[in-house]
Amino acid sequence: MQEASVNESSRRRPVTIKDLASELGVHPSTVSRVLHSEAEVARSAASAETARKVRELARKLGYSPHPQASGLRTGRTHLLGTIVPRLSDLVLAIMYEGVEEAAAELKYSAFVMNSRDDMEEQRRKTEIMLARRVDGLIFGDVHLDCPLMPELARRGVPFVLMNRRLRGFPSATCDDVLGGQLVADHLWDQGHRNVAVVAGEPYASTAVDRTSGFVDRWRALGGDIGQGAVVWSRFDTTGGREAVAAILRTARVLPTAVFAVNDFAAIGAMGALRSHGLTVGRDIAVVGFNDTPVAAQLPIPLSSVRSPMLEIGRAAVELLRRVLNHEPAESIRLKPVLQVRESSA
Amino acid sequence: MQEASVNESSRRRPVTIKDLASELGVHPSTVSRVLHSEAEVARSAASAETARKVRELARKLGYSPHPQASGLRTGRTHLLGTIVPRLSDLVLAIMYEGVEEAAAELKYSAFVMNSRDDMEEQRRKTEIMLARRVDGLIFGDVHLDCPLMPELARRGVPFVLMNRRLRGFPSATCDDVLGGQLVADHLWDQGHRNVAVVAGEPYASTAVDRTSGFVDRWRALGGDIGQGAVVWSRFDTTGGREAVAAILRTARVLPTAVFAVNDFAAIGAMGALRSHGLTVGRDIAVVGFNDTPVAAQLPIPLSSVRSPMLEIGRAAVELLRRVLNHEPAESIRLKPVLQVRESSA
Repeated sequence: MQEASVNESSRRRPVTIKDLASELGVHPSTVSRVLHSEAEVARSAASAETARKVRELARKLGYSPHPQASGLRTGRTHLLGTIVPRLSDLVLAIMYEGVEEAAAELKYSAFVMNSRDDMEEQRRKTEIMLARRVDGLIFGDVHLDCPLMPELARRGVPFVLMNRRLRGFPSATCDDVLGGQLVADHLWDQGHRNVAVVAGEPYASTAVDRTSGFVDRWRALGGDIGQGAVVWSRFDTTGGREAVAAILRTARVLPTAVFAVNDFAAIGAMGALRSHGLTVGRDIAVVGFNDTPVAAQLPIPLSSVRSPMLEIGRAAVELLRRVLNHEPAESIRLKPVLQVRESSA
Repeated sequence: MQEASVNESSRRRPVTIKDLASELGVHPSTVSRVLHSEAEVARSAASAETARKVRELARKLGYSPHPQASGLRTGRTHLLGTIVPRLSDLVLAIMYEGVEEAAAELKYSAFVMNSRDDMEEQRRKTEIMLARRVDGLIFGDVHLDCPLMPELARRGVPFVLMNRRLRGFPSATCDDVLGGQLVADHLWDQGHRNVAVVAGEPYASTAVDRTSGFVDRWRALGGDIGQGAVVWSRFDTTGGREAVAAILRTARVLPTAVFAVNDFAAIGAMGALRSHGLTVGRDIAVVGFNDTPVAAQLPIPLSSVRSPMLEIGRAAVELLRRVLNHEPAESIRLKPVLQVRESSA
């Protein structure tokens, strides 16, 4: 093998972050952050002028981020890997349909694996996907303390987040804070003053953002959220049932309204309230989140914040497309709308 | 390349169906049916003695079915592809969790794609998976008139069916006929004599078997199923709602009980009955199928036939393991159990 300048060698072996850095006389981490981080981080990593130069050179030399250390890959595989907590969570299944749809429009194929919201499993599935030479990854299961994301960014693996966000990485999500605010406004307007929140899992931005959006707005309206009125829970019917059972057991005063940050938790909450002899929509209001297709069809139709799940999946693919093309990738927050139905009318 | 006998060449290039056939002096289609069909078909394809010889030689020569025409593959990839109609159908999402679980125990990785129950899309996704060199495929979306399955069998692609069955190919399903019978017995015992069926999609064995199991048993009990009382429908809430709306519009006498072959269709049916001023569980009985986790948690808990969804996914992997190892693969029908709840008590 002969020695060659970056320009020549780029035709023989894949161009690396290091090649770009040495050509431009900057630190490799600068190049990595410009090419693989959310716009906000990219901006803090380099001047606009340097960032522009990095992107230009990356394009010119045909830089493509390589999941494998080896130079085996010469082109794109047009395969996208998606990892979600569990496909039996309808919310993720619908987001994934958006991923599949948008990927097909870009002539990409998508496939998906479950991590069961376990960070070891997330890591294992990620390595399987990289070994299958996906061009990029979409994570629907990121935890707020997830160590894998910074590591993948350092390795130059192209990925974006969906469903849940994590500061510093591009994500496509619902504006969950706004969603929580909408519910607070609605319940306040309906005259409720004593409320409880089935808050979801504290490691997920969806749960944290919806809950804090609700609680902060409630307090801004002059409301009070009592001790024990915010209960963290699993995202499924059993989680919602258990959370409401706990609230009913410990509350000084029974709440007149319950906000569950997920429709399935809301359905579980409705079941627990009913077992307690309360009729939802008459004795107590319940509001869910996501407006899954079942919400409107329930025997007592459920008020719910409509999260544009399919569009979130589609937006994640668009973000990943930008990352793969070295374009700036700004996180996308899609607007939710509250659907008021009999459960809280 | 030197000429060589089958025995020697098997070490240089993959052994094919043709090699086995010429070595044994039988037709290649006989070998193919013995190695790739359900036990019943395999038995009709060859005598027990011939079938034994085919399997023995396949094992001896290390025959491995090759999705690619080329001889590029030399070993197993330990990757299983699964195709389902849509993961937003919870039933399939749970079955897929069973697939993933059982695959992991065999040190296999599974991934999954949606076909949207479209046979062109099924074919497209299959080819993508074969190009990714999966060792075998699990189809959860087979139609009763599906042309792809006989074709894949001819090509020697290892696959099994899950969720829906198709005569002649190994499948892991619920005993759907029995499930329908259980519902007929229950409603008959409760004194119902005028019933309607939300029957699902006529191209799916699940819908056809559950409906025929119900109708045949109902008639055997001495019951009558009126004209227009069996309505084919989509498998989701909207499908169930529309089917019941049609039944309410056209029935001479209102039914006192509705059997929906899917829980989501049952939930849609409950919504339509409620819009009609009927209280489910008091004015009219409703029974669903699958006993998805939401059924028990509904404001009016739904009676439902518990289909062992996770176990069906696990059984599909076990069947595929047998196919890959050239062991006889007999279809598996798992027993359902009826869970009676307030909607029909």
